[in-house]
Amino acid sequence: MTVRASRAYAAIIGCGRTKFSELWDDSMSDLMLDSLISALKTADIEFKDIEAMFVGNFIAAKIIDQGLVAGELAQSLGTHIPIFRLEGACASAGLAFYNACLGIKSGKFDIVAVTGVEKMTDRGEIVTDALAAAASNWERFYGNTFPGLYANIMARHMYEYGTTREQLAMVSVKNHQHAINNKFAQYPFPIKIDSVLKSPLVADPIRLLDCSPVSDGASSVILCNPEIAKRYTETPVYVTGAGAATDALALFAREDFTGLTATKLAAQQAFTEAKIEQKDVNILELHDCFTIEEVTALEDMKFVEKGEGGPFIGEAVDSFKGSKHIVYPCLSGEIVVNCGGGLKADGHPVGATGSRQICELWEQLVGIAGKKQVDLDTDLTTGVAHNIGGTGGVGSVHVLQI
Amino acid sequence: MTVRASRAYAAIIGCGRTKFSELWDDSMSDLMLDSLISALKTADIEFKDIEAMFVGNFIAAKIIDQGLVAGELAQSLGTHIPIFRLEGACASAGLAFYNACLGIKSGKFDIVAVTGVEKMTDRGEIVTDALAAAASNWERFYGNTFPGLYANIMARHMYEYGTTREQLAMVSVKNHQHAINNKFAQYPFPIKIDSVLKSPLVADPIRLLDCSPVSDGASSVILCNPEIAKRYTETPVYVTGAGAATDALALFAREDFTGLTATKLAAQQAFTEAKIEQKDVNILELHDCFTIEEVTALEDMKFVEKGEGGPFIGEAVDSFKGSKHIVYPCLSGEIVVNCGGGLKADGHPVGATGSRQICELWEQLVGIAGKKQVDLDTDLTTGVAHNIGGTGGVGSVHVLQI
Repeated sequence: MTVRASRAYAAIIGCGRTKFSELWDDSMSDLMLDSLISALKTADIEFKDIEAMFVGNFIAAKIIDQGLVAGELAQSLGTHIPIFRLEGACASAGLAFYNACLGIKSGKFDIVAVTGVEKMTDRGEIVTDALAAAASNWERFYGNTFPGLYANIMARHMYEYGTTREQLAMVSVKNHQHAINNKFAQYPFPIKIDSVLKSPLVADPIRLLDCSPVSDGASSVILCNPEIAKRYTETPVYVTGAGAATDALALFAREDFTGLTATKLAAQQAFTEAKIEQKDVNILELHDCFTIEEVTALEDMKFVEKGEGGPFIGEAVDSFKGSKHIVYPCLSGEIVVNCGGGLKADGHPVGATGSRQICELWEQLVGIAGKKQVDLDTDLTTGVAHNIGGTGGVGSVHVLQI
Repeated sequence: MTVRASRAYAAIIGCGRTKFSELWDDSMSDLMLDSLISALKTADIEFKDIEAMFVGNFIAAKIIDQGLVAGELAQSLGTHIPIFRLEGACASAGLAFYNACLGIKSGKFDIVAVTGVEKMTDRGEIVTDALAAAASNWERFYGNTFPGLYANIMARHMYEYGTTREQLAMVSVKNHQHAINNKFAQYPFPIKIDSVLKSPLVADPIRLLDCSPVSDGASSVILCNPEIAKRYTETPVYVTGAGAATDALALFAREDFTGLTATKLAAQQAFTEAKIEQKDVNILELHDCFTIEEVTALEDMKFVEKGEGGPFIGEAVDSFKGSKHIVYPCLSGEIVVNCGGGLKADGHPVGATGSRQICELWEQLVGIAGKKQVDLDTDLTTGVAHNIGGTGGVGSVHVLQI
C-alpha cells in the first residue's frame, strides 16, 4: 500500500449519476437506484457487497411529503443494511460523504455507498418556500429569500472590492461552456455575458442567469477501505483530506459576509490533512449556487487574495480562446473550476450536488470523463470538492488524489 | 486501558437532558443548549473541548419551518465546529449516536457531543400530518396513519399469538410506574390497567394510553475516545456494540409484521460486537412508541420467545409488589425495561428519544439516577438501548457497559 493510501480515509472505486433536469417520470427512489446502479457498474461490484449507505437529502419530507428516506430506499433495494440520512441543506451529500469516510476509517465498514438525491420540480409551486427553511427564521420574517440573501453578499462584495457585474456574469459563462460536453447536464449549451446581464432581475443585483436551477437528480459514490481498493480497481482515487465547518445561520449574526467562514475552515482542515497547498490542486468543484459564491469560494479557499476573485475570473474568461475548458492561471499552476458545468449549468438537485461533485472529480482523475475530460499541461492528480449548505451555515471540503 | 475500553467505540463521559413536556416558552435552540450545557456539566468540560456535534432531529423543517438545524445550533453556540444532522424519524438520535461513535473510532475526533431535539407542541394542528411523512406514501394514500399502522401490527400480534389487551395495557402501567421518580418525565404518575382499557380508541385496538405522547425536549451525550476517558471521569461508560439496520418502509412490503426485522438485525450486530448475550443485560431501554412495540422488541431481541412477550410482561406486572421498578425475570437474570418511563411516560420528542435512552442508561450504570436508580441483586454492568424509526424502516441498538 502506498503512503497516500495508508493515510487516506477511503478510496473511491466507482461513481454514477442521473441526468439533472426536470425528471417528472422518475420517483425519488428511481433516481436513487439509477445512480446507484451506475456507480456499482463502474466499480464492477454488486449491491450485496455494499455494507452501509450514507444518503444526502435536504427536504423530501417537505417537497414530496416523504420523510424517512432511508426506509424508502431500503424498500426499493429490498435491503436491510444500515442507511443513514445526513441533512445539511445543499451540503447534505458533502456531509454524507464525510460521514461515509469516517465509517470506512473507523473500520466498521469495508465498502459503503453515498447517494445524494433531490426531487424538486414536481412541486414547483412550493419549492421556493421549502428551500427557504434553510435560512434563518428572522431573515425570513423580514421578507428575505435565498436569492435575496446571496444578493446581500453579492452587493456587499461589489461595494467593498469593486467586483463588477460583468466579472460575476463570467462565472455563468464559464460554467455553461464547461457543460457543453456533459451529457448529464441540465443546460449543456453556451451563454453570453450579455444574456446574463439582460436576464430578469431576481434579487438586485442577482439576475436569473446568476442562479443555479431547480433540478431533479441523484448521484452515487462507492467508497472502500483504501487497503483493499486495488482488488477492485487499478485506479482508486483516495480521499486524503476531509473538512467540515459551520457558521451562524443568519448573515446578520456574522462579522463579515463577503466570504464564508465555513468554507475557510473546512478548506484549511482538508488541505492540512491532505498535506497539499493550493498550487497542488488541478481541478476544483466549487459550490456556485449563485455566481458570487464561486468568487467568494476562490477567495475563502485562498486560491486568490481577498477581493481579487472578480478580476481573476474576468481575466481568465477574457483570455479564453475556444478550447474545451477555461483555465484559471492559479498561483504557480493551472486549475479548472467546475469541469462539468457546476451547479449553474450541470444543475442543482440540492441533496445530490455534493456527491455529483465527487463523481465529476473521480471521472476526471481516473481519466474517463470523455468529451469533457480536462486536458492540462500537467497530469491531473488532485481534485477538491467544496459543498455549502444554506448561505454558509454548513460546509464541507474534500481532497481527492490519485 | 482495560480490554473493554480498547475494543469500545467510544466512552460516555456525561449526559444531560431537558424535561420532556409541552415547553412553549423554549425554542428548539433553547432546548438543545439546555441539554448540552447539562451534559457538559456532568462531564466537567467546557464547550470549547467539543470537536464536533451529531444532531438527531426528525422534522423541524416541517413542524417549525426550520431546516438546516446545524446552522441554527451553530448560531446559538457561536461555534464553527462541524455539526451533522442525522435523520431517521424517531430513530434520529440513535443514528446520530451511532455516527458519533464512528467519528470517535475513526480517530478524527477525541470528544464529540450528540444532541437529539424535537419541538412539536407549538404546532399541534400539523404534527400528526408531519409525522406521517415517515410512513410510506402508499400506506398514507389509502388513509392509514401512524397509530393505524401500529394498530395493524398489534391486531396481527393478538391474532397470531393470543396476546391480550390486558397484557398490552400493562406495558403502559409499568412505564408510568417507572416514571414516578423521574423529575424530567412528561407524565410522572401511575396509571391503572382499567384506565388504559377505557381510554379513547385511537385506532382499534390501540387506545390513547397505549400511545407515547407528543412532546418537546432535548437530550445530549458527551462521547470521548475510550483511551482518554479516564482523564475526565472515574466511571466512563463504554459503547461496546453498535448495530443499525433498515427495512421496507411499508408494512405491506414485509414478509411478516408481527415483529421488526430492523430490530432483530441491529440487536444481533450489537450483541455480537459487544460479546454479550441476553442474560448479561441488566437494564434495557426499548422503543415503546406504542405498547405493542415493547412486546415485539422483547421478542425480536430474543429476551423471550416469539409470541411470549405478552404473557411475560403480564406476569411480571402481576407479580409487582410495590417497590420502585417492575423487574422482568429474564432468562437466567433479571432485567428492568424502560427505567425512567420509556417513551410512554417519560415523553417522546421524536428526534430526542434515542439520546434520552442513552442518558437514562448512563445515569443508571454510573449509579447517579437518584430516586429512580435501579436496584437489582446483581451490579448494573450492561445496558442496551433500542431506537426505532417509523414503523421499523430504520432501527439502532447500542450496548453500553461500565
